[in-house]
Amino acid sequence: MEFGIQFFPDVGPEHKSAADYWGESLNLAEVADAIGYTHVRTVEHYFHVYGGYSTNPLTFLAAAAQRTKRARMVTGAILPIFNHPLKIAGEIGMVDAMSNGRLECGFARAFLPHEFATFGRSLDESRARFNEGIEQVRRLLEETDVTSEGQFHSFKNVTSLPRPTQTPRPPFWVATSSSTESFVYAAEKGYGVMTIPRPPATVRDWIDTYRTTWKAAGHEGQGKVMFATHMYCAPSRQQAIAEARPHLEGYFRCLHDASSDWLRVTSKDYPDHPSMIATDRRDVDSMLESDALWVGTPDELCEKIERYQKSVGGIDSASLQVNFHTLPVKLAEASMRLFAEQVIPKFRS
Amino acid sequence: MEFGIQFFPDVGPEHKSAADYWGESLNLAEVADAIGYTHVRTVEHYFHVYGGYSTNPLTFLAAAAQRTKRARMVTGAILPIFNHPLKIAGEIGMVDAMSNGRLECGFARAFLPHEFATFGRSLDESRARFNEGIEQVRRLLEETDVTSEGQFHSFKNVTSLPRPTQTPRPPFWVATSSSTESFVYAAEKGYGVMTIPRPPATVRDWIDTYRTTWKAAGHEGQGKVMFATHMYCAPSRQQAIAEARPHLEGYFRCLHDASSDWLRVTSKDYPDHPSMIATDRRDVDSMLESDALWVGTPDELCEKIERYQKSVGGIDSASLQVNFHTLPVKLAEASMRLFAEQVIPKFRS
Repeated sequence: MEFGIQFFPDVGPEHKSAADYWGESLNLAEVADAIGYTHVRTVEHYFHVYGGYSTNPLTFLAAAAQRTKRARMVTGAILPIFNHPLKIAGEIGMVDAMSNGRLECGFARAFLPHEFATFGRSLDESRARFNEGIEQVRRLLEETDVTSEGQFHSFKNVTSLPRPTQTPRPPFWVATSSSTESFVYAAEKGYGVMTIPRPPATVRDWIDTYRTTWKAAGHEGQGKVMFATHMYCAPSRQQAIAEARPHLEGYFRCLHDASSDWLRVTSKDYPDHPSMIATDRRDVDSMLESDALWVGTPDELCEKIERYQKSVGGIDSASLQVNFHTLPVKLAEASMRLFAEQVIPKFRS
Repeated sequence: MEFGIQFFPDVGPEHKSAADYWGESLNLAEVADAIGYTHVRTVEHYFHVYGGYSTNPLTFLAAAAQRTKRARMVTGAILPIFNHPLKIAGEIGMVDAMSNGRLECGFARAFLPHEFATFGRSLDESRARFNEGIEQVRRLLEETDVTSEGQFHSFKNVTSLPRPTQTPRPPFWVATSSSTESFVYAAEKGYGVMTIPRPPATVRDWIDTYRTTWKAAGHEGQGKVMFATHMYCAPSRQQAIAEARPHLEGYFRCLHDASSDWLRVTSKDYPDHPSMIATDRRDVDSMLESDALWVGTPDELCEKIERYQKSVGGIDSASLQVNFHTLPVKLAEASMRLFAEQVIPKFRS
């Protein structure tokens, strides 16, 4: 099992300047790469404290690639619905080059109604735009002289530049939080899946479906599952919880606020979101008890991770949010170092 | 007078991989910053050896910012016609943060018909899309809660994130090669201008118009003029010409090929382009004689630059293409170092 770090800014100008947030994150990426974390990942969001400092994951990864030597640079995720496929393909080519072939591309459908509204996109076109976008980008990377007549974007005889550094292209991932359909889609296409904390039985079903579909599609191996969660590691449980807790609360408050439009809107492409948000209790106490949120001592985290692995059926890579909300960067770095020293070695294959 | 370097890839997979091109360029940027060049700049182009490795200047500058400490990071230029203003503003916010406030944003109308055709944009909308785009981006950076009803893009109550690191925003420039109107526009708005080698009398007229308009608009100072050209500096004239010449020829052949659609198309927004391309003789010999192309010994370049300065009326900053076409990077670096040692000090104010 591998461990990487994920930057998910949930701060706005009232908390921390973007220069401070990104400066700290680039320093953390440099440290992480040196002490054994195997990837650096970031998100695409807009116009809200929830992720809004990271409007283009490729922009950050271009920078992070200069501060790291070995770690893979992972988008988690690019949102085709808000981007032109010709732009995405061109930027992927640049970052794959500037990272010397270390780029991996996660794609997602997006899920925040306010982002759709501001870009003038319909929630009901979410799946169609995702499917068309990722397929057009795949073809632009793998093929030359590409012609595509899409519902949303069309182009003729295009050879996207730069050609990818990796052959035939950087590995693709599909990020999904609530849709069996997305796990099936990813498996059929031969892409990895990125998921987040959900009830373990549900996650196990999704991963089972993913691996069964993967094999049925005739791909080699069993695919790849990446799991993202918050991590905070300290010498005592009391210290870990006391230091992480207010910033976890800040993060979930921010997510809830960004998602609250679902109390007022519905969409055929997001059948479960209104009820998911309405019943979201943001109970940090029970989250801290669960095996899906990794806050504790090194020993506790080893146990949590082992139990979580057993309960969901095996994940290949964990993507750790280490500097959530306004957690002081010195604490984030100390936590990241302690985890690298005492937890990661237990899970090396 | 200041000197920076500009990366204008005019190579394709048949010449050099993008990993090699960008790897070499990032190394050159690091050296340039350390030896006194004051900016690093790159272009936005697509689908052709002429610039096509650089589909998003902000992506490169995010990386270059990590390899430099003092140099300004300059887009030369962003093309609003191929980009959503909400995306441009968000990425500017990220790169201004990741460079700790060292970003400067040049914008241009684009001029290659094949790029317009592939993106499905009309050449006749060039000026309208440019004007709307740069103005929407300016407002998104300077203001919060922005509403704009445009001909091409509209949005409501948007606060773009991240907010810029510089106040009120990174300096803006307008890149233009052939249009008096653009010099007037830039001066009225208080933006710098970026220009390229043209007949000196014409450039002098443009700069005069720019400065007169600048003062009439009530701005302080006299604005800023940035001039981009090729530079190759070697201990002897013979060596300089022998080493640079085939790569200059390669560059101009590539530009001519990328522009050749103008032999078949016309547009009200580009009245002079068809005749400009039709009469373009790409006479590298006479270019090498002119004061606008800087190939020679340090002494010769000092003289050329002084004469060029006198003939056009004073430029504030020169942006030097140092690694054009397939010029070996060791030669590019040696030339850049010699120029920094023996030419730049003569022009320090």
